[in-house]
Amino acid sequence: MSSRNNRATGQQSSAGRSSVPQKVGSTRTLLTVKGDDGQVLSRVRRTVLPGGLRVVTEQMAGVRSACIGVWVGVGSRDETPALHGASHFLEHLLFKGTRERSAMDISVALDAVGGEFNAFTAKEYTCFHARVLDHDLPLAVDVIGDMITNSQLTSEDVEAERDVILDEIAMHDDDPDDVVHNLFAEQAYGDTPLGRPIAGTEASITALTRAQISRFYKHHYRAANMVVAVAGNLDHAAVVRDVRKAFGRNGFLRGDDLPRSPKISAVSRKLRPGTITATRALEQVNVVLGVNGVTRSDERRFALGVLNTAIGGGTSSRLFQEVREHRGLAYSVFSFASHHADAGMVGVSVGCLPDKLDQVLDVVRDELRKVALDGITAEELERGKGQLRGGLVLGLEDSGSRMSRIGKAELVHDELLSIDEVLARIDGVTLDDVRTLAAELFAQPEVLAIVGP
Amino acid sequence: MSSRNNRATGQQSSAGRSSVPQKVGSTRTLLTVKGDDGQVLSRVRRTVLPGGLRVVTEQMAGVRSACIGVWVGVGSRDETPALHGASHFLEHLLFKGTRERSAMDISVALDAVGGEFNAFTAKEYTCFHARVLDHDLPLAVDVIGDMITNSQLTSEDVEAERDVILDEIAMHDDDPDDVVHNLFAEQAYGDTPLGRPIAGTEASITALTRAQISRFYKHHYRAANMVVAVAGNLDHAAVVRDVRKAFGRNGFLRGDDLPRSPKISAVSRKLRPGTITATRALEQVNVVLGVNGVTRSDERRFALGVLNTAIGGGTSSRLFQEVREHRGLAYSVFSFASHHADAGMVGVSVGCLPDKLDQVLDVVRDELRKVALDGITAEELERGKGQLRGGLVLGLEDSGSRMSRIGKAELVHDELLSIDEVLARIDGVTLDDVRTLAAELFAQPEVLAIVGP
Repeated sequence: MSSRNNRATGQQSSAGRSSVPQKVGSTRTLLTVKGDDGQVLSRVRRTVLPGGLRVVTEQMAGVRSACIGVWVGVGSRDETPALHGASHFLEHLLFKGTRERSAMDISVALDAVGGEFNAFTAKEYTCFHARVLDHDLPLAVDVIGDMITNSQLTSEDVEAERDVILDEIAMHDDDPDDVVHNLFAEQAYGDTPLGRPIAGTEASITALTRAQISRFYKHHYRAANMVVAVAGNLDHAAVVRDVRKAFGRNGFLRGDDLPRSPKISAVSRKLRPGTITATRALEQVNVVLGVNGVTRSDERRFALGVLNTAIGGGTSSRLFQEVREHRGLAYSVFSFASHHADAGMVGVSVGCLPDKLDQVLDVVRDELRKVALDGITAEELERGKGQLRGGLVLGLEDSGSRMSRIGKAELVHDELLSIDEVLARIDGVTLDDVRTLAAELFAQPEVLAIVGP
Repeated sequence: MSSRNNRATGQQSSAGRSSVPQKVGSTRTLLTVKGDDGQVLSRVRRTVLPGGLRVVTEQMAGVRSACIGVWVGVGSRDETPALHGASHFLEHLLFKGTRERSAMDISVALDAVGGEFNAFTAKEYTCFHARVLDHDLPLAVDVIGDMITNSQLTSEDVEAERDVILDEIAMHDDDPDDVVHNLFAEQAYGDTPLGRPIAGTEASITALTRAQISRFYKHHYRAANMVVAVAGNLDHAAVVRDVRKAFGRNGFLRGDDLPRSPKISAVSRKLRPGTITATRALEQVNVVLGVNGVTRSDERRFALGVLNTAIGGGTSSRLFQEVREHRGLAYSVFSFASHHADAGMVGVSVGCLPDKLDQVLDVVRDELRKVALDGITAEELERGKGQLRGGLVLGLEDSGSRMSRIGKAELVHDELLSIDEVLARIDGVTLDDVRTLAAELFAQPEVLAIVGP
């Protein structure tokens, strides 16, 4: 199963630092955003429940929906080789039934009200999320709470779901984009949790036992390792009440554990340079070319945002212009930056016809070399900032992206920045910041993954 | 380039029928939705400009963004074999430069404000759309108006973009899902415009000349064949003023043409039964199995919506339960209904491992046979209605989906239903409606498309 300008955000009083340890039973207002006329547009609050479960809500003006996401601090990088794929397997199994609800009951509950209900597993976290009309929020909280705290993991369900996951892995193997990104991770991080595919392999999924998955569930699905994030038309106290009830099953909300601190690392794990290829009977060649980037907590991430935008973040970017507009070499070409607690990468993704590969690689490397030497122009700096500003504000209009922002901030960052603070940090990026960073990043040896005929 | 309940909708005064002919210069309020306290939550208005250009806006309370879409009544089904792919080729070319703006100017304009800016081509229409912060709307209107009325289509641009499109076609050829759907259309509609892939083929794209595309542009991109739809935080009169200026280039808004009427057909074109296969070196087999459905204007589309939901519209649906939950035969299985002016289809899409294909097809056919014999249960009827209600309201919270709703309604439907009217029609669906429709649809011979090893 699978985020304005100042006018738009209004006045903000920020108290964003969500530093730990947090006292059990405490409730705190992390952010308040008021409109020009003084009414509250948005308010972010956090309560810590017994067991260390954090409930973070954002009350949004003008919407009639609500989105809940339960963020669990476990993902594929927490897996030993023997447990490879366990996080994702477990995510699937939590939909298969609890002591109170069958798999069909779980499906019916949110289908019947038209809710969007799904989950996804990443390298550093797993998220169960639902978007519903505001008055159906208590239902959504109850269903997800039941799944998280009360799942059965029967042997029959493990066997049926094993087949479903093997089919999912086969589907990813048929998607050239998934294949090239998995291949890149394999080259960059080797045989480590960060280098292995999230869903596991045919061999690892076939080998996993119910007992292993059950132990993994008990070990990682603890209240202190979890954040319940809710955004939309809501009342914080009511949400806390609902969460207390829904997650109170089986003594889940007991004990004096403090919320687990986010993993923060100043040291960046290095990518292993080199080229890796896979042969597939495809029309196109799919390529990812990358170098070390910056970690999630690195302040240079804002400068990297601007740099990434200038290199390949839009249709006015250097790569789009040089590769597609001027030369017609590819339909899809863009750059991206990804961040982990202790690693990061910046890369370029492109798909082209096989006979254009050399030319595409020449153009891409040439553009990276130019930006490493000369940085970006003042015009690109301003455009990049505008693009990040507008994209940030446009991307936070719906309850789903607000939920993700506060949930992820609580689980994996050491602070929740207000939108105005993020905008200020973007505005603070200088030409020198970008030039220094580009020179450092693109002087590194490349990691190259190629999939094609 | 690439694509509630009463409480939530408030009180609606509906005057939705957008029947033609519409007088040039006229402005009409099509819908007004008020909240419980009497304030206007949403208002849909339409003005017809000289030349027959329709401007439809929906003013939304509580958002700070706006989304514009220019809907042009031309798509791949308007193409002769010699023009196959011309609609999509032209869509690409309109981004390549006008007499006032270079391709780079076009890209820079919306990138610099963080706007989302793209276009897509379908079988019956082409849409150019942008989502921006409300104060950037005049800029977005100006850029798109310039592209639509003032593009150059230079020979150099035609050649460069030809390569980009060939690369896009190769990308689609590598996507199992695109391949199986194109194959299904080929079997169902044969060598007709509806049966051919939207982007064209390598041969047709290689053969298209600048002169052909230019004639196609002049013929189809006329004011009367176009709807400008805008939703978000806006003022209708201001939008009409901006559109008048942006689209007033080159005498575009001249003449007494009335808006072109939507193509409505009571007669449904029949799918050609049979099986079509394509061999690819894939891990999975991808299958689409379908029969004739109903046209876009057919009142039975609401009953079909409920039926489709019960068969394969969610995780509680029969197919998800039988194929995935109970038997673990596939990761992805769902049903869908698609509608054209004079054709429609209802089908099932599934991807599975090759050795499970026969079993999957048995289960799917068995479920369709059962629903043809016995219809659905009262519980499924209620759940299906709830699912459509919730999905409808949740799906209309953002300016983009509102823009699409009013734009498409004006271009291809004969009426704009208020949300409450749609909800009433959903509520009006009976068990008998669904049973009668299921018996009729699933007694028809099937069209089957299979792609795999």
